[in-house]
Amino acid sequence: GNTVLSGYGTTIFEAMSRLAGEHNAINLGQGFPDDRGAEDVLQVAARALLEGNNQYPPMMGLPALRQAVAAHAARFYGLSVDWEREVMVTSGATEALAACLFGLIEPGDEVVLFQPLYDSYVPIIRRAGGIPRFVPLRPPGWTVDPAELAAAFSPRTKLVVLNNPLNPAAKVWSSAELNLLAQQIVAHDCLAVCDEVYEHLVFDGRRHVPLMALPGMRERTLRIGSAGKTFSLTGWKVGYVTAAPALLQPVAKAHQYLTFTTPPNLQAAVAYGLAKDDAYFGLLAAALEAKRDRLSAGLASAGLTVLPSEGTYFVVADISGVRGLREGEDDAAFCRRLTTEAGVAAIPVSAFYEEGAPKHLIRFCFSKQDAILDGAVMRLKDFF
Amino acid sequence: GNTVLSGYGTTIFEAMSRLAGEHNAINLGQGFPDDRGAEDVLQVAARALLEGNNQYPPMMGLPALRQAVAAHAARFYGLSVDWEREVMVTSGATEALAACLFGLIEPGDEVVLFQPLYDSYVPIIRRAGGIPRFVPLRPPGWTVDPAELAAAFSPRTKLVVLNNPLNPAAKVWSSAELNLLAQQIVAHDCLAVCDEVYEHLVFDGRRHVPLMALPGMRERTLRIGSAGKTFSLTGWKVGYVTAAPALLQPVAKAHQYLTFTTPPNLQAAVAYGLAKDDAYFGLLAAALEAKRDRLSAGLASAGLTVLPSEGTYFVVADISGVRGLREGEDDAAFCRRLTTEAGVAAIPVSAFYEEGAPKHLIRFCFSKQDAILDGAVMRLKDFF
Ligand SMILES: CSCCC(=O)C(=O)O
Ligand SMILES: CSCCC(=O)C(=O)O
Repeated sequence: GNTVLSGYGTTIFEAMSRLAGEHNAINLGQGFPDDRGAEDVLQVAARALLEGNNQYPPMMGLPALRQAVAAHAARFYGLSVDWEREVMVTSGATEALAACLFGLIEPGDEVVLFQPLYDSYVPIIRRAGGIPRFVPLRPPGWTVDPAELAAAFSPRTKLVVLNNPLNPAAKVWSSAELNLLAQQIVAHDCLAVCDEVYEHLVFDGRRHVPLMALPGMRERTLRIGSAGKTFSLTGWKVGYVTAAPALLQPVAKAHQYLTFTTPPNLQAAVAYGLAKDDAYFGLLAAALEAKRDRLSAGLASAGLTVLPSEGTYFVVADISGVRGLREGEDDAAFCRRLTTEAGVAAIPVSAFYEEGAPKHLIRFCFSKQDAILDGAVMRLKDFF
Repeated sequence: GNTVLSGYGTTIFEAMSRLAGEHNAINLGQGFPDDRGAEDVLQVAARALLEGNNQYPPMMGLPALRQAVAAHAARFYGLSVDWEREVMVTSGATEALAACLFGLIEPGDEVVLFQPLYDSYVPIIRRAGGIPRFVPLRPPGWTVDPAELAAAFSPRTKLVVLNNPLNPAAKVWSSAELNLLAQQIVAHDCLAVCDEVYEHLVFDGRRHVPLMALPGMRERTLRIGSAGKTFSLTGWKVGYVTAAPALLQPVAKAHQYLTFTTPPNLQAAVAYGLAKDDAYFGLLAAALEAKRDRLSAGLASAGLTVLPSEGTYFVVADISGVRGLREGEDDAAFCRRLTTEAGVAAIPVSAFYEEGAPKHLIRFCFSKQDAILDGAVMRLKDFF
């Protein structure tokens, strides 16, 4: 018999990374940096591994990391968080999301989501018995239509899943948009699960605003962060959920049966990392902003129409009418051919849709060394 | 609204470890060793952390670890395993179990389980929409009644969950028992998910026999192993599932949305560890066997009736009529009082039951330094 999940394919990020590997393509598909990550954080992790405890840490996470998560929320967003009752460590943001959804959704509950969306949300919601309701964000502006937003809510809405900054659209939600959303959530007495893993990767002087900081949302929001993007160590899989005790409790029940806990030496190192000075976080964003500019200019010079990127690792390009595109070829087929023939892997934006996908957009990851970005642009120029 | 999981409390292991910490009790509750773990494995992990890749490893796990898992199954059990199509790495055995259950169970499926059982099995089965059917293993022998076993199966049985060696009963399943079980599974055309994390912790010259090695079971079994118990590094959370491709595929779908992947440096170190020579595995078992003997003798000298322990980290004691037991006091209340008044934490065996729990058994963990075991025995003698 088929199960709920068996209809889903291998995640597009894994599939394209495999294809890139097989064809020696430059991998601008899956979102990860190609540097070593934060060097001092690595050193702390190695020391904790060799000198610290490697047995089960507490199920909720090391106190030091939970305290650091709370202090980080106070420093950057003015949020007051009780680390003992409001912070839980998870094995990455993916597990944090799964724990939130399995912990909170009952069969028949409706969940409001924005498309495009990250590919783990809907399978887990369905596996928990939830019913997704989609609100479209239309390119190139990716703005919300207030009427479409209102129409997605119903008396059966249990929660909203928000990704801010938004992968793959590279959109940073404005305070006005967040306000509109918060009003709907309060009016419908429901919750928000906010995947904010790109919180520090915002550009052009923008500031990330957590939905949790909006009026009425402190007690309704589960905020997810992760070390992977903040310290350029995507393989570490250390995430955290911050939420009011009444919300965190059922989520902790799910977590204790999903992974139970997370390697203690990595937790200790992330605790150290979150306390780094403001300069670290500023330089991280500035370095990525420069890479965004470099790749965007290169893609434009190769003949692609590049959409604005306000945050994340990503920039989206419009392939409509681009030279080299075949009659009737969609974004997925074009990305495969770009990987195998041009030697540059990208991700089709349609992979982020359950329904009504655009077929003319592809996503490039710019968190790579400059020489790699330049090499990719050269290959694309040759191809077009 | 209450969700499926919100009815479950904090896992007993975490709860008793917290209580032990608060009361400065010797913690013979939660199962973990108190030594540093395999030193050379730690060194490999530190080197991989500082010199290797810390970005996303492949979703299925590092090839080196998947190859090592396959080689280990061939060396110890004569199993022939195709590492590319039949092995997946997970963030610990807990995630491996969750991935198997979420990947394979559809709402309405029945699942056969033996009581006593590990406390994550039933919540995840229920959360996946499955219906548990329990087969009792009655102390002190913990044997299976063939009629009770047969009665638990039905045309709706999707799978059986087996823990071998069995926590907390410290039972190593005999080939005769495994055969009986395999016959039922084949006759009902269903599957087995085998949690074999204690596979190397078997005593008195016993050999662990994976259910997967029994006639008819190769294509029906998902075998779960873990580094935590094999290398005395329970905090690492590196597990693995071995199964025929048709079974592993839906489980990989669940895994990619539960955690996606596992820290690469720990994976590399476990790959190294699984290739250690036979002496390592023999000495591990021998060291624990000596600790079992030491604690069992001590508990007996303190006045407790000790049940046989054939494997795992654990020994169960019968508290019926023991001095210090209060009128009407059950195992859970006694364990709390043992922790707070005697200064020794143990786990009530009733925590491993959904129904029909015995109330006169408590579990001690002996994977501790000899001085700690001796200290615990002294405290118990003082208390009784
Ligand atoms: C978990 S692999 C996906 C990485 C990522 O977030 C992306 O490429 O969008
Ligand atoms: C995941 S904490 C539980 C450890 C353990 O397996 C036990 O104590 O039984």
